[in-house]
Order: sequence, then structure tokens, then C-alpha cells
Amino acid sequence: MANMTKPREALVFPPDKSSSIDLYIPPSSTSSQSTPTKPFVTLTYATSLDSSLALSPGVQTALSGPESKAMTHHLRSRHDAILIGCGTAIADDPSLNCRIEGVGGYGGKGLEGQPRPIVLDPRGRWDVNHESKVVKLAAEGRGKAPWVFTLGEVGHERNHILEDVGGQFVRIGGGDVLEWDDILRVLAEKGLKSVMIEGGGHVINSLLSPKTAHLVDTVIITLAPTWLGKGGVAVIPDERRDEQGTKLAVGRLKDVKWVPLGEDVVLCGRM
Amino acid sequence: MANMTKPREALVFPPDKSSSIDLYIPPSSTSSQSTPTKPFVTLTYATSLDSSLALSPGVQTALSGPESKAMTHHLRSRHDAILIGCGTAIADDPSLNCRIEGVGGYGGKGLEGQPRPIVLDPRGRWDVNHESKVVKLAAEGRGKAPWVFTLGEVGHERNHILEDVGGQFVRIGGGDVLEWDDILRVLAEKGLKSVMIEGGGHVINSLLSPKTAHLVDTVIITLAPTWLGKGGVAVIPDERRDEQGTKLAVGRLKDVKWVPLGEDVVLCGRM
Repeated sequence: MANMTKPREALVFPPDKSSSIDLYIPPSSTSSQSTPTKPFVTLTYATSLDSSLALSPGVQTALSGPESKAMTHHLRSRHDAILIGCGTAIADDPSLNCRIEGVGGYGGKGLEGQPRPIVLDPRGRWDVNHESKVVKLAAEGRGKAPWVFTLGEVGHERNHILEDVGGQFVRIGGGDVLEWDDILRVLAEKGLKSVMIEGGGHVINSLLSPKTAHLVDTVIITLAPTWLGKGGVAVIPDERRDEQGTKLAVGRLKDVKWVPLGEDVVLCGRM
Repeated sequence: MANMTKPREALVFPPDKSSSIDLYIPPSSTSSQSTPTKPFVTLTYATSLDSSLALSPGVQTALSGPESKAMTHHLRSRHDAILIGCGTAIADDPSLNCRIEGVGGYGGKGLEGQPRPIVLDPRGRWDVNHESKVVKLAAEGRGKAPWVFTLGEVGHERNHILEDVGGQFVRIGGGDVLEWDDILRVLAEKGLKSVMIEGGGHVINSLLSPKTAHLVDTVIITLAPTWLGKGGVAVIPDERRDEQGTKLAVGRLKDVKWVPLGEDVVLCGRM
């Protein structure tokens, strides 16, 4: 029988808040979808008022409050996969698991409710090893092992490290960059019906660029009431222009809801 | 007797929204304050999610919805002065009056509830003339005439244009730039007890810089659920560092309230 005590680190997200936000995420990670060509894509991140994710590149910056952290883990429990770029993996050594009360490893059975971590690492820059948090958590049964999407081959050693805990390297596409169409197609082919894209700046700006923004289904953004100032890691998508060369807004959200959460606000919307 | 019919352009701001926001503005424009050395400073602006005020410099960009516009005019009715930079005056030819129902010119008596427009124009770049909206509205009794703060002399013609409608040019300080301390001191000396600083980008970033951000009392920011993309007019203050050179957040708001307003959200807070 699974350990039903509440581990010390388990988080709780209040139902009154989650009921507002749950309208913007897939109803259940096990919902069936006929011939999916791409997973349901939720883009989520937290910025300052001046649209920065962090004070400087590679510097982890505490922006949002504890309620926002609990929300992130609630969202993770409702997606088949969570996705980050290798810059974030290198800078933060993130856990990439779900610590909401009741999921596998946190009061629940097996790995129920644990999303698959996906790390985009086209050039194999992330030195994933036995000490990486995500590997240790997978070894302890408190999270799934990561899949690392690359353009080329990586060394045998790193391959073994991932495979030993149930992860893998996945070569995607044949070009110079990982294309979003390819990434999402592979996720769908592997049976993942939803993915929550969490950062960092490069990944978010790339996804929000005019060519690919339409791939996003919903957006859940946390805004903290602070300014980080110049030199931060900013979310600013590439500009969009019409055929006459006139600059246009990159995108406006529809079906918008603002949910105050502690000192922060959470913006939910559809692309 | 004043014309009490509602002029076509008059705006109404719903009391349930204003009651939340009014906690962050001076209680009344006629409230007495003993020996004021600076007016109460409210910083207010509207940005996209990527912290842009406009798509490009000099391009007026409709960001926020009609409710936010009504809020701005409600706020104007509760301040003795509103302040903008000459870039905004040149780009937008703004009215700089208050059109909320019941103020002078919009159902009320005289110029009651109309704020004094202040334009910062250190080098006399703004070609204010008889066709400028703010001058025409002052001539029609639907707004106060502007005071233009400069570093040097301006021509007689522009002086006359402003003076004819009750405005003036005001020379401030003896340096190369208009200093915020001087600007606010002069406003206080002239008996203005509150000022709402509205933009544009240069004015806001300058005021939010580490040296002067403490001069702001409250902040009322409207956020629209859109991204404008690179090349916009961004609100990003200068960075702040401690004595060891470590980068710090420029400022975090206290006593924060988020008020959803149409598709937008209004952030109220104290510096």
C-alpha cells in the first residue's frame, strides 16, 4: 500500500483558486483525444512588472509568492509533461516534479500525477548526472525521469545515467534548431496529451514568436508587483508586421481571467 | 447655473471599482497638508504583458479597454495636476483634461475637478499652438491650461499662446536636466498637493530609477493581456545594485491590490 502520510514538502493549492484556473488546463491527464497531432499546450511563467523572469541570465530569482508555487505544482499534476530549456536546467538544477499533496511520491500511489520532464537541449549542454535533482528524485520514486530532446548524439555515460532512472535522450529533427512543430509532434507520438511549457526566456520568446504562437492553447502567467530593472531575462517576443510592414501586436489573449493570488496576480487566457 | 446635462463625451467609472482604487489616491484634491515639500505622487500607466507602452516610439497604441480609460479620468479628477513628458505631448496631442461625468466642463461648475496639465519639456521641443487639443479645451473652459516646465527660455509667441488661455512656461533648475526634486518642489510651492504622473516611457523610467523611485507614493498600473513584441516603448527602470555590486530588484510594491477591469487588470500599490 502506498504511503498515505503527507510528506513534509507536499504543497496544497486552495480549491477556490484552482476552480478558476482549472478552466484553462486540460480536464484530466488521462482524457482521450482521437488522433492527436500535438498535445494541448499550456504556456506558463512568472515575471516582474517589467517582464523579467530573472535579475540576470543564470540567476535564479524569487519573484512570486508561496501561493504561486503551489499553483505551479497543481498545474504540473494536470499535465502529462512539463518542458524547459537547458539554460534553466543548467542555472537552476530544477526538481521538475510535482509536489502537490496526493500525487505519487507525495501521498499518492506510484508516479500518479507526476508529469514527464522534457528538457530541450539541442547541443547537449546540460551536464545531467547522478547529482542532478531531477535524476535523484526519479531514483527515489518521487518524479518521472527526464526526456532530453537533442539534435545530435550525446555520450554513453549521460545516456546510461538517464536510462538507469527511466529517462532517455531523444534526437529530434535534422536541422540546426529544435523546431516547435517537431517537438510537439514527437510528444504526441509518444502518447503525451498535454504539456506545460515553463521557461526559460529563450524557450518562451521562441514559442511566442509570430510563426509559432498559434501552437499555444492557453497561457497562465503570474505577475509579481516588482520591477527587476534593465539587464534582466525578459519575455519580449519578436515583433510582428503585416504585409505592408506595419507593426502589429504579437498576440492578444481571449477569454481572459485575472486571479489575485497572494501578492501576485495570475492571468489566464487563450491564444 | 452650470449646465448639468451630461455632455456626450462624459465618462462614468463604476463606484464598486473606484472604491477599491480610491484607497491609493489622495482623499480629496482640496485636502490640506501642513508645509508640503512635495505633492502626493501617483504614478500611473498602462502596459502590455511585455511592459510596453506603445508598439514603437511616437506611435499611439490602444492597449487598455474603455473601463481603464474611465478609470484614468476618475483618477485625474482626484489629483491637482497630471504630468507627462514632451514626447507624449508631441506624439499624441493629448487632451490632458478630465472627462468624468460631473467635473467642470462635463456637467460640473467652472473648472472644478479639472487637474492642471504639466508638460516636461526641458528643451522646448513641443510646438504648442492654437490647434493643440489642450489649448483648445482650455479656451472652451473644458480643462485647465498647461504649465510647461523648461530649462531655458521659449519664444514670445508660444508664451502668449499659453498665457492667453491661462497657462505658462516655468523655468526650473539651472542644470542640464529637469530634476524630479525640483519639479516636485515647484509644484508644492505653487500649491498643488497631488500629481498624477502618466508617461511616457522616458518620464516613467526616469522616475522609477533607483535615485528617485522613493518620491513616488502610490502606483496604479493597468496591464492589458497582449504582447507588443520587440521594439516597443518599454517601461524598464535602470538597474539597482548594492554596495557589493550585486544586482537587486529596483522596487517592490507594498499593500498591493489587483482589480480586474474589463479585459485588463489594475495593480494598485505603495512604494
